[in-house]
Amino acid sequence: MAVQRKLRMGMVGGGPGAFIGPVHRIAAELDGKIELVAGAFSQSPERSRAAGEMYKLDPARAYADYKAMIEAEKKRSDAIDFVAIVTPNHLHMPVAVAALEAGFPVMSDKPATATYAEAVDLEKAVAKSGLPYGLTHTYAGYSMVREMRHMVASGKLGKVRKIAVEYLQGWLSNPIETSGQKQASWRSDPAQSGAGGCIGDIGTHAFHLTEYVTGLKVVGVNASLLSVVPGRKLDDDCTALLRMDNGAQSVLMTSQIAAGERNDMRLRVYGEKGSLEWHQEDPNRLSVKWLDGPEEIRHAAAGYLSDDARAVTRLPGGHPEGYLEAFAVLYREFSDALIAWQDSHTASLPSTLPSIEAGVRGMRFIDRAVESSKKQSWVEF
Amino acid sequence: MAVQRKLRMGMVGGGPGAFIGPVHRIAAELDGKIELVAGAFSQSPERSRAAGEMYKLDPARAYADYKAMIEAEKKRSDAIDFVAIVTPNHLHMPVAVAALEAGFPVMSDKPATATYAEAVDLEKAVAKSGLPYGLTHTYAGYSMVREMRHMVASGKLGKVRKIAVEYLQGWLSNPIETSGQKQASWRSDPAQSGAGGCIGDIGTHAFHLTEYVTGLKVVGVNASLLSVVPGRKLDDDCTALLRMDNGAQSVLMTSQIAAGERNDMRLRVYGEKGSLEWHQEDPNRLSVKWLDGPEEIRHAAAGYLSDDARAVTRLPGGHPEGYLEAFAVLYREFSDALIAWQDSHTASLPSTLPSIEAGVRGMRFIDRAVESSKKQSWVEF
Amino acid sequence: MAVQRKLRMGMVGGGPGAFIGPVHRIAAELDGKIELVAGAFSQSPERSRAAGEMYKLDPARAYADYKAMIEAEKKRSDAIDFVAIVTPNHLHMPVAVAALEAGFPVMSDKPATATYAEAVDLEKAVAKSGLPYGLTHTYAGYSMVREMRHMVASGKLGKVRKIAVEYLQGWLSNPIETSGQKQASWRSDPAQSGAGGCIGDIGTHAFHLTEYVTGLKVVGVNASLLSVVPGRKLDDDCTALLRMDNGAQSVLMTSQIAAGERNDMRLRVYGEKGSLEWHQEDPNRLSVKWLDGPEEIRHAAAGYLSDDARAVTRLPGGHPEGYLEAFAVLYREFSDALIAWQDSHTASLPSTLPSIEAGVRGMRFIDRAVESSKKQSWVEF
Amino acid sequence: MAVQRKLRMGMVGGGPGAFIGPVHRIAAELDGKIELVAGAFSQSPERSRAAGEMYKLDPARAYADYKAMIEAEKKRSDAIDFVAIVTPNHLHMPVAVAALEAGFPVMSDKPATATYAEAVDLEKAVAKSGLPYGLTHTYAGYSMVREMRHMVASGKLGKVRKIAVEYLQGWLSNPIETSGQKQASWRSDPAQSGAGGCIGDIGTHAFHLTEYVTGLKVVGVNASLLSVVPGRKLDDDCTALLRMDNGAQSVLMTSQIAAGERNDMRLRVYGEKGSLEWHQEDPNRLSVKWLDGPEEIRHAAAGYLSDDARAVTRLPGGHPEGYLEAFAVLYREFSDALIAWQDSHTASLPSTLPSIEAGVRGMRFIDRAVESSKKQSWVEF
Repeated sequence: MAVQRKLRMGMVGGGPGAFIGPVHRIAAELDGKIELVAGAFSQSPERSRAAGEMYKLDPARAYADYKAMIEAEKKRSDAIDFVAIVTPNHLHMPVAVAALEAGFPVMSDKPATATYAEAVDLEKAVAKSGLPYGLTHTYAGYSMVREMRHMVASGKLGKVRKIAVEYLQGWLSNPIETSGQKQASWRSDPAQSGAGGCIGDIGTHAFHLTEYVTGLKVVGVNASLLSVVPGRKLDDDCTALLRMDNGAQSVLMTSQIAAGERNDMRLRVYGEKGSLEWHQEDPNRLSVKWLDGPEEIRHAAAGYLSDDARAVTRLPGGHPEGYLEAFAVLYREFSDALIAWQDSHTASLPSTLPSIEAGVRGMRFIDRAVESSKKQSWVEF
Repeated sequence: MAVQRKLRMGMVGGGPGAFIGPVHRIAAELDGKIELVAGAFSQSPERSRAAGEMYKLDPARAYADYKAMIEAEKKRSDAIDFVAIVTPNHLHMPVAVAALEAGFPVMSDKPATATYAEAVDLEKAVAKSGLPYGLTHTYAGYSMVREMRHMVASGKLGKVRKIAVEYLQGWLSNPIETSGQKQASWRSDPAQSGAGGCIGDIGTHAFHLTEYVTGLKVVGVNASLLSVVPGRKLDDDCTALLRMDNGAQSVLMTSQIAAGERNDMRLRVYGEKGSLEWHQEDPNRLSVKWLDGPEEIRHAAAGYLSDDARAVTRLPGGHPEGYLEAFAVLYREFSDALIAWQDSHTASLPSTLPSIEAGVRGMRFIDRAVESSKKQSWVEF
Repeated sequence: MAVQRKLRMGMVGGGPGAFIGPVHRIAAELDGKIELVAGAFSQSPERSRAAGEMYKLDPARAYADYKAMIEAEKKRSDAIDFVAIVTPNHLHMPVAVAALEAGFPVMSDKPATATYAEAVDLEKAVAKSGLPYGLTHTYAGYSMVREMRHMVASGKLGKVRKIAVEYLQGWLSNPIETSGQKQASWRSDPAQSGAGGCIGDIGTHAFHLTEYVTGLKVVGVNASLLSVVPGRKLDDDCTALLRMDNGAQSVLMTSQIAAGERNDMRLRVYGEKGSLEWHQEDPNRLSVKWLDGPEEIRHAAAGYLSDDARAVTRLPGGHPEGYLEAFAVLYREFSDALIAWQDSHTASLPSTLPSIEAGVRGMRFIDRAVESSKKQSWVEF
Repeated sequence: MAVQRKLRMGMVGGGPGAFIGPVHRIAAELDGKIELVAGAFSQSPERSRAAGEMYKLDPARAYADYKAMIEAEKKRSDAIDFVAIVTPNHLHMPVAVAALEAGFPVMSDKPATATYAEAVDLEKAVAKSGLPYGLTHTYAGYSMVREMRHMVASGKLGKVRKIAVEYLQGWLSNPIETSGQKQASWRSDPAQSGAGGCIGDIGTHAFHLTEYVTGLKVVGVNASLLSVVPGRKLDDDCTALLRMDNGAQSVLMTSQIAAGERNDMRLRVYGEKGSLEWHQEDPNRLSVKWLDGPEEIRHAAAGYLSDDARAVTRLPGGHPEGYLEAFAVLYREFSDALIAWQDSHTASLPSTLPSIEAGVRGMRFIDRAVESSKKQSWVEF
């Protein structure tokens, strides 16, 4: 039977100055099913302790490093139920493996690892552990993304013929990584970020969304990765043509030097009978355009939406939900899976929640895009 | 010194089927400073207990009624720090007074009471208690509302000349209150809702936003209240001309029979030099139009915004925040005020947080609008 | 049989510096059925001659005043077929009467006259003449306005319950009439403009659109006219509640001191089952919101539109048409009516083209709104 | 000295059923400087005669073919001043050469010819003739396109780093060319359309807009042309990466199988300091996004726009202009150039009007894109 208490989360990463740590905390707790109780928030013990205070935790559970957290928590009767990983990319793999080996399910920020090889190894570690492992491809949590996914699967658009996905930011238009901006520094450093810059940081979201919404798989990639800002080590702009397994072509465009853009992710899916258009910055609306008939604007929380879409909203129509709420959907689905696992010891994630398989494909995408760009030609996926 | 723990909230109302209870829970807890620990969620003990389970509370703290909660909590060493009131309108006053008299600060849903006379009495009770009392006029929590307020106060628009505020919904286009829809039933019942229907439920939000953003006070009202749906006891559509204390005129239009609208609140403020336009359903954008110069779109979380606006966002630009986040801003400001009061025993709310004064003015507005509509003429405020 | 030549237009007004003269010329000629051949473009003979050159007319047909034009043209074998009136308001009546008495059909800019009494007289003159008389309420020529009109008439929205019409401009935010701006000067001068300022200039458009789209008639008015800019003689801001003959209420808001607005006319019509929203500045889209079902965006020139809407577009979907094209629709309908009259000597305008009846109602509206505002109460229409 | 009459236009193509013929007629005549007086509207004499009646021409000037028109007009004292070519692509070249050889300046629809080789020859013919030759890349006539061009040239955005241009239509989602739809038939037939389908029909517009607005030249192309609809002979979907001569990359995406799209051309230009975004379907607005500062929406006809942008609007702000007005700007500029040539016998087009040079580049683009797509690799431009 399901526990009658909140699930306990231990977080690795997310200390002072981090953007994504507090986001995970809010998202995890938003639906009232999880509480943050422990963490190894920083590689600096003082900073980890300070973060613990900020989160109003028991000081004893603000650990100096993730190994200490795992060791100590294993022994507690009120131990954490799972580990949330919110570090820079290069730590995703070692933390995840350590947690899984200690018997803790894992909810990890994306990308799953820093390299494709690591991802393959991690996939094995997850399989071996038999534990739930979720990946926070945030955008999969939006209600309208669920509606798009439902519409494609239902066949209402006919065969998918063309996809256009964009993820444009402008915040790396200047070389701010050279002046100590923390978020920019690790993302621009191959040692912490991996082989992909922009393509790893946000291109993987765009890639994931493409496969997630259409149910199609990428089978070929022709990418052009550029480092537009002089001196930058990793790509900050990427365009890729993707060949899907049904023959459709997808155009993926992502950039972090698109001056003036904030977080402009948008997806368009063209089928034989109609098309979908969604913008992350205006997430509660979905445009559905038909070959014969008026354009439809579907609004989040409306009664006419699919069950899939309606299952993940909390408010009546016209009350905007946003990024945190989408994020929280993934935590809610993870918590349900985790409770089921605690009951049955069978790890089974819903298909709506990105898993290690999605993580491996995302890392493969980075790998293949980098290869294609070097060769200036198509490569098999 | 500030407490190193989360503040404990006891909720009255918000049981199964309620819309606003879970909203208050999420909003209160979102910033990690408050936790829901007790409640009298329903006038039915079983339903209150069920709600306690849903919220994963200690069963002993899911009370059968608010009086029981107040009595029991007073005696606990880990007593609640404040009471949140989320009942239908007619209970706002008795619960608030009981809580204040027992020494508990109050965070109340709007409107403050069911009648103007009650509001005046409640204002006295708040003053007598010396305790913090906050009112959740949600829209005051949006970052772009804070930006508008700042812009008007800064004089950048020149003198305010004209205001247009709208709050349009369509969900009462049919007489659903006659078929048992819970939300519609109490709102359409004068005994539970008070003298105002639409004007009380959402018109008060529009009224509050007008004064909140412009810093002006309404001094005259010419209102037309209609019950458009046959058989409806209270107004479901209202238009009012408002005379502001600087001579400007405001047009307030609100309806719950605007078929097809969801929660379409929008505010336009026209000054001598330019104007502001904001839509609640697209809350992270603010249009600023100048007499001489391009229209500006200001985006939430941008570096160029006022400190007032920036203080109440949690995410980088382009990551949408919504209704729950705005609501949470009010709880955050209330929690800060409450901690200060616990330290100093001086109740001082920030001017950004709607208080009992705003509550009294809101009830006065309903009273004056009803009077004006009956007389079909202007009335003094 | 219909003439196998273009109809010949003689214009009164529209000389150098005028905005609306060239607009009428373009609109009249756009569909290839009319050509401007003569004019009395200014009360200054030199300016009239200069305008004739600009329009590349035979110099002999650039007349010094409208009486001269009418006299001379009557005698020509290639005489003008009709007179277009584009002067300031106070000349509409005398020019129209002179033209009609000389046997020339008339296409007049709005409002029909400068006063209500004049309009009543003009209506008689039109009836007596038996000639076609059209009024250029431009917005009636937009395809999406025709679609709205069709949708209301078809009953798809159910009974109309509420209307909100706005027409907001900001160009009179400063007293530019005092510094010689020609457009502002005559509009702000009661002697040239009549009793209405803003309400006459643009409020009449909003009033007309309301009746035109809904097919309802205004039966009561409660208006508030303001002169916001110090020293201005006529109103520059007006709000009016309108009672329609089916019991619905309309809120009409118009202003010329709405700083930052350009020509923001928008109409919303709420029925029992759904609603319409249209913005003149984005004229090729129509939002249709349903109580149960997705919002629809109908796009101009689409195959699914009504015949009424499709009849008045010239381009495939996605090729924007605008103000001039809408204007040209009225001239096209007038030219068809004129040809029919030349064939049959029966003047019969299509119901889609605003006529003297609309002109009389528009002048009545100004009259009633001014009266209501003085009395600060409802008046019968 | 400039002629004091309208210029006389003879049109080739544009008979019954044609879309673009009436568009050229309206555009040419809109500004009152040109009149259509003659034409060879169809390869069928009866259809040409019928078109002449529709256009209300002298029946003697509705010719059976373009050669007859050129011969006959040469002999008239009131001969046409220039020839407008609006035929399917394969006739552009022979008609243009015949006209130029007979001494008639030419205004041609795009693309300039059916093949690159023809374009090179035509360029020589134009040079030899010394006559004005204009090309109607319509979108160059929009005021906001002029504003973008001005902004890039002025350096306000800094160096251009990235361009994204799209032109999406959905009307060829089904193989309508097989059922006799005239517009689809010739566009899908290599014999009439040339080597490019979608890329020739609309891709050339996107290509032109890119170079026109940025002032940069394409130096390399990597294109993927697809025939998505089974059985279609020419491409109906194309994506191309373009390398610009300053090192920037442009992503060009064009399709005629994007179900639900109408005429969705949009351009985004990213510079070091900010970016531009413009949508043809909403042409009177231009979004300017800055790295540091609010997004700006610039509105057509505003006083703050560049002289370049202001020179090509006819109406005050808020009065929408559209496709026909943009088209008319090109004819206006052509007519001014033609008058200057008549005065001075020096053919000098303003840089704002697309010329044969743009035509050659457009044909080169088709040629290079087809080549690149065959090779599946980058090619030099």
